[in-house]
Amino acid sequence: MMMEMMNYLFAPSSIAIIGASNNFAKWGFIILHNLLMGKYQGKIYPINPREKEILGFICYPSVKEVTDQIDLALITIPAQEVLKAVKECIEKKVKAIVVISAGFAELGKEGEELQKEIKEIVEKAGIPLVGPNGQGISCPKSNFHPWMPVYFPKPGKVAIISQSGNLSTWLAEGLENFGFGVSKAVSAGNMASLDWADYLRYFAKDPETKVILLYIEGLKDGRSFMESAYQTSLIKPIVVLKGGRTPEGIQTARSHTGVMAGEERIFDSVCKQAGIIRAESMNEAVIISAGLVGSPIPKGKRVGIITSGGGLGVIAADYCKEHNLELAQLSEKTIEQLKKILPPWWVPGNPVDLVAGIRYAGPKEILPILIESGEMDSVILIGVGWVHTMADMSELSPLKDRFNFKKIMEERKAGDLRYCQRLRELIQQYNFPILLVSTSAQRALDRKLESLIELLLNEIMLYPSIEQAVKVLSAITGYYLWRTQREK
Amino acid sequence: MMMEMMNYLFAPSSIAIIGASNNFAKWGFIILHNLLMGKYQGKIYPINPREKEILGFICYPSVKEVTDQIDLALITIPAQEVLKAVKECIEKKVKAIVVISAGFAELGKEGEELQKEIKEIVEKAGIPLVGPNGQGISCPKSNFHPWMPVYFPKPGKVAIISQSGNLSTWLAEGLENFGFGVSKAVSAGNMASLDWADYLRYFAKDPETKVILLYIEGLKDGRSFMESAYQTSLIKPIVVLKGGRTPEGIQTARSHTGVMAGEERIFDSVCKQAGIIRAESMNEAVIISAGLVGSPIPKGKRVGIITSGGGLGVIAADYCKEHNLELAQLSEKTIEQLKKILPPWWVPGNPVDLVAGIRYAGPKEILPILIESGEMDSVILIGVGWVHTMADMSELSPLKDRFNFKKIMEERKAGDLRYCQRLRELIQQYNFPILLVSTSAQRALDRKLESLIELLLNEIMLYPSIEQAVKVLSAITGYYLWRTQREK
Repeated sequence: MMMEMMNYLFAPSSIAIIGASNNFAKWGFIILHNLLMGKYQGKIYPINPREKEILGFICYPSVKEVTDQIDLALITIPAQEVLKAVKECIEKKVKAIVVISAGFAELGKEGEELQKEIKEIVEKAGIPLVGPNGQGISCPKSNFHPWMPVYFPKPGKVAIISQSGNLSTWLAEGLENFGFGVSKAVSAGNMASLDWADYLRYFAKDPETKVILLYIEGLKDGRSFMESAYQTSLIKPIVVLKGGRTPEGIQTARSHTGVMAGEERIFDSVCKQAGIIRAESMNEAVIISAGLVGSPIPKGKRVGIITSGGGLGVIAADYCKEHNLELAQLSEKTIEQLKKILPPWWVPGNPVDLVAGIRYAGPKEILPILIESGEMDSVILIGVGWVHTMADMSELSPLKDRFNFKKIMEERKAGDLRYCQRLRELIQQYNFPILLVSTSAQRALDRKLESLIELLLNEIMLYPSIEQAVKVLSAITGYYLWRTQREK
Repeated sequence: MMMEMMNYLFAPSSIAIIGASNNFAKWGFIILHNLLMGKYQGKIYPINPREKEILGFICYPSVKEVTDQIDLALITIPAQEVLKAVKECIEKKVKAIVVISAGFAELGKEGEELQKEIKEIVEKAGIPLVGPNGQGISCPKSNFHPWMPVYFPKPGKVAIISQSGNLSTWLAEGLENFGFGVSKAVSAGNMASLDWADYLRYFAKDPETKVILLYIEGLKDGRSFMESAYQTSLIKPIVVLKGGRTPEGIQTARSHTGVMAGEERIFDSVCKQAGIIRAESMNEAVIISAGLVGSPIPKGKRVGIITSGGGLGVIAADYCKEHNLELAQLSEKTIEQLKKILPPWWVPGNPVDLVAGIRYAGPKEILPILIESGEMDSVILIGVGWVHTMADMSELSPLKDRFNFKKIMEERKAGDLRYCQRLRELIQQYNFPILLVSTSAQRALDRKLESLIELLLNEIMLYPSIEQAVKVLSAITGYYLWRTQREK
């Protein structure tokens, strides 16, 4: 029941904004305006006893005065008035509530009492409540962005639940930098009612969500978290970024969301038992989540490496070893097949160093050999889309009258595009984890690099560095091994 | 003497390209063409016995036939012919040589003999030789880019010396992503003659170089490396990325540059003794180098944090602790001063959480208080340039006829610009390490975000993540402590 009601949080047909305002510096304005900018298509009812009309909508003194059904109420009024508003929502049979207002448990004893009272009445009424003291939620698929930042993530497959408003936006923005989007984002605030366990159970079943990304500062109920995380991990991967790993971080968290961060050692053991993938930084949280959306999960630790340069191969080999992965051993048969493609001075082995001399198309032929060998569980391909990073000789060359550089560059760009299309086909054909590393990845969308966009638009992750590709591979391989052991 | 001759590598008045070609697929073409595209202003002499003219230049059968003085000879002919060409260069009194050709020690015994012979004759003649088996060099200040990639770094203060050609380019490109440039880049190849110690001694004295960044796969002479690194570290910071840290990496390095990577434990101890800053990844190598150019070095471990969001403060506090730094303790006096600026619900402490409610200009007043308190050695400021990341309401808002969003956005952008200008002034005024974190950092140049470019153009580092800022702070603080201990 509660689970079904949670759908109203993310795709309501009608919303009441309790505390809506005509003053563009107020939260009640910003949220309403974000709904309009985000192109929300449902009905909107501003609630404010001191206004007759807000931004062109009829304004009501109380949610009870609205004659229509209200699916979701969004509350931005001062803390002292929130309890009364919540009670009115329950009377009105509102289906879900988001409280953005701060001034509860994070401020001490008095606020905690108030928060507890709200918790009790919504749970008695069976209504899901997000917050208080969060920045709101976002559901791109419903064009629904009732939150504080003027930022609208693109639709995607990562659910973000965060105990920090800023982090819910930063993580979504981080995903978008790699071309990935979010299914739902929740700034969960003080978690008066809906708790980690509720969110995990909901997103485990949510068909739009493939990966669940959490920013956690503290747990009120460790056992319930672990049980729901364990059950969820058997279905979908959970990635966790934990704030409050050190005494200094715990101290800071206490004045932030008013929860105890708990002991790092215990939390780490909980994660290991529950199959949770831990990220060490915001950046890692983003790339692991995107990697899980954009790549099949490897079925073992053996990694094959194809590199466009020797030094890059050395770095990749080091990282694999340092992150609990193994360099795949190539059999004589595989080496013989590769020798037919690679130049005579190729030094046989993994990493497969393409060395100067092989034509750019090489990997298209090498990849099937490596994958079909059965000798590896994943492949890292270093150096994708290099032509696009070259200076455009057709414009800049002093010899442009002598050589048709325009034609040469166009041919190379077209070749790059065909190459990337072929990579995408290979990834789909084999459903095999091929991790693509490209220094141009982070700038691909901004710079309109056709060939790389071809990949990004098809939700294929481009890793900006070898280190990141290896970290993701290590994390998701570990998750696979955890899950298959439990499934036996 | 040798040291002075090395200047001819980076700023020659005349260059001979031995192996120059009219065929645009050949290295002898690419290098010559890169010289032209890079706008090299010196004299160019193509050498090729089978051509009369190359790209409009008179072609000579041998370097000896050129009547003019040759400062630098660049060799791209097959390995077997290199020795003869080098001998001719010595006869011609060429001042420096770069050998790009491969086929030496990296291929085994025979190549090693050839390499040794070249080493002996150039050292006897007192001529500096880069390579063989590198991709060339680059000196942006001289508009001089005789190397393989069609990529021309911007001038800056980081010297790159790399045992991998690809890495010399990737590292330079990485620096440019943050708005930083290179003084000189050297793809050092097999290091037949010029060795780590030579490069370190040269760059320690080079007035254009502030930071020395090395990619090392192996050392032939560990003691000489350590001694020169120690002496250099007392003058300028050295950042090292090491390839071949694991048996897998060492194995890969062997077939790459033909050197032994040596034992990780020993190398690590060498770095500690010689004051070398070790980077764990290419990304870290880049941000630490840029950080050293773009920020004064902190004089101790005490860090102050200013954050635009609670969760970000928690993460920053954790990282500082995990990276051997301390959260600065604020005195009663400092807290009283801050209370006058921050809203009444501010929870006193470090991180200084700006919480919702403070005006954007806050940090401008908070920074001087923190710096002048003497209670910290550095400050991390999280959340710079946020206005630019907002959707442009003047264009997208359905209410644009009702509200003058255009004016509001313009005012906000102007405010952002003033804010960033003030930050720059504060950094210059106090000459104090203020590390700025901005999620928009990596996209600032592409997206033409005025306010952030204001910072970048003044060589101030913008860190894309808290984690990166803390890692840099930790690395450069460690370097400071090493250096001051030695200087006592």
